[in-house]
Amino acid sequence: MANQQIGILHPGAMGTFIARCAQTSGNPVYWASDSRSPQTRARAEKHNLRETKSLAELVATCSIILSVCPPDAAEEVANQVCAHAFKGLYLDANAIAPQRAIRIGAMMTQCGARFVDGGIIGGTNWDARVTWLVLSGQNADEIAALFADSPLQTRVIGDAIGKASALKMCYAAYTKGTTALLSAILATAQSLGVRAELETQWSNDDANFANATRERVRRSTAKAWRFVGEMNEIAGTFRDAGLPGEFHDAAAEIYKRMARFKDAAPIPSLDDVLDALTKPGSEK
Amino acid sequence: MANQQIGILHPGAMGTFIARCAQTSGNPVYWASDSRSPQTRARAEKHNLRETKSLAELVATCSIILSVCPPDAAEEVANQVCAHAFKGLYLDANAIAPQRAIRIGAMMTQCGARFVDGGIIGGTNWDARVTWLVLSGQNADEIAALFADSPLQTRVIGDAIGKASALKMCYAAYTKGTTALLSAILATAQSLGVRAELETQWSNDDANFANATRERVRRSTAKAWRFVGEMNEIAGTFRDAGLPGEFHDAAAEIYKRMARFKDAAPIPSLDDVLDALTKPGSEK
Repeated sequence: MANQQIGILHPGAMGTFIARCAQTSGNPVYWASDSRSPQTRARAEKHNLRETKSLAELVATCSIILSVCPPDAAEEVANQVCAHAFKGLYLDANAIAPQRAIRIGAMMTQCGARFVDGGIIGGTNWDARVTWLVLSGQNADEIAALFADSPLQTRVIGDAIGKASALKMCYAAYTKGTTALLSAILATAQSLGVRAELETQWSNDDANFANATRERVRRSTAKAWRFVGEMNEIAGTFRDAGLPGEFHDAAAEIYKRMARFKDAAPIPSLDDVLDALTKPGSEK
Repeated sequence: MANQQIGILHPGAMGTFIARCAQTSGNPVYWASDSRSPQTRARAEKHNLRETKSLAELVATCSIILSVCPPDAAEEVANQVCAHAFKGLYLDANAIAPQRAIRIGAMMTQCGARFVDGGIIGGTNWDARVTWLVLSGQNADEIAALFADSPLQTRVIGDAIGKASALKMCYAAYTKGTTALLSAILATAQSLGVRAELETQWSNDDANFANATRERVRRSTAKAWRFVGEMNEIAGTFRDAGLPGEFHDAAAEIYKRMARFKDAAPIPSLDDVLDALTKPGSEK
């Protein structure tokens, strides 16, 4: 996989992590700078991403494009890449429903590009091999090869487009679904005046559970704004499979009420989080 | 608390456990036999519960009544006890919303009885002290005293009716809510052809999680039929507190689809459970 030019859409925190991992293949990684924030430019320059001025220039420059963006944007981003007549290899690594991955794959095939379905499991951890890129599709091995010498672990789970997205949806359904459920439970208990009693009861089962749960809820707030779209994708995935989508409708509502804490520093107190959950009308 | 006559409504598996625990106080426990099944009679006789023929006779006989029944029935059962002019001490130990407990308490006060709110956390385990009766209300200590020498641990969490029910709701919201969520996730993954891949991914985080989850889902089926009402109570509790009730609307739907496995022996295979979840239309 040498002599490739790799494009990253978009170099946010996770996108930059994926870009850095791809750089370990010896290939340069490009980004498109128009309409991006000064923070994104600083991040791109810090990690030696090469600048193109526009999506058109990125598409013309790159033989491989990696899409890492909020799930709500995934289909539109792919649409724009097609509109610029991309003919290379396109990875969608976003948290989207398998039906949406299949639609994007069909669009890419129609515009003459090759498509790989992907899903990222884990965070942006450079020092430990704890982040996975699950992949499916006939060209999945080509994407996996880019990351062979990086901290990102890859796992190809078959030829069918949609499988990698299905796995990502089912995995996140538990992790992020449970965090949302626990947030709602703490807020309900607080509202009913039994939070301390609930935490004591939890401690009978597991001495660390109450403390771990409080921290888990507080820490989820920073990224809650972009979990809303992911929860909606999971709800749609469940419904398409004949299962109730309401678990993740509720999770989307919880993360929506937490969205005000985007980029909050310091991390909000638990009382502030529970207030936001029980009094969504007071949202700024 | 000697020289009391205790009545149990109704001696199902949990009711009989609570009755046996109450017997350790040295007081006799009565049941009402009309319209009950031969299995219930056998269970009552095995554990030396004293027979009364009717609810009217039970109410006339007993100074304390313990209500342990499906949540859907709790209010109607209390209503009937009031209709027989009960003047003693009434415990509602059912998995009901705090608002319902408050309504039942008001009804009891109006008919001249004293009321204690309760919730049972844990199973019918006689040999280990792992089952809790949480209690609230001004007369809670009188109920707690009945169980001082039994395997049932009691915890009085205040004077306010509704607090014990609120704690029970919040506790079960996580345990039974998560079991339902995991059931839905396994069924979705099965339907999308990624169950094995999901289990492998889970095993990267925790070697035992996939196996424990499969067993947890299979074992939840036996009692699923009576979790439906409890999930509805939790959904109502969340909504009354201003939080989304949809988590437990979905959980109620999952347990409804599992209800066909009531009293199934042997315990169904995971494939049978997941079939029931994805093809509810084929329900017998």
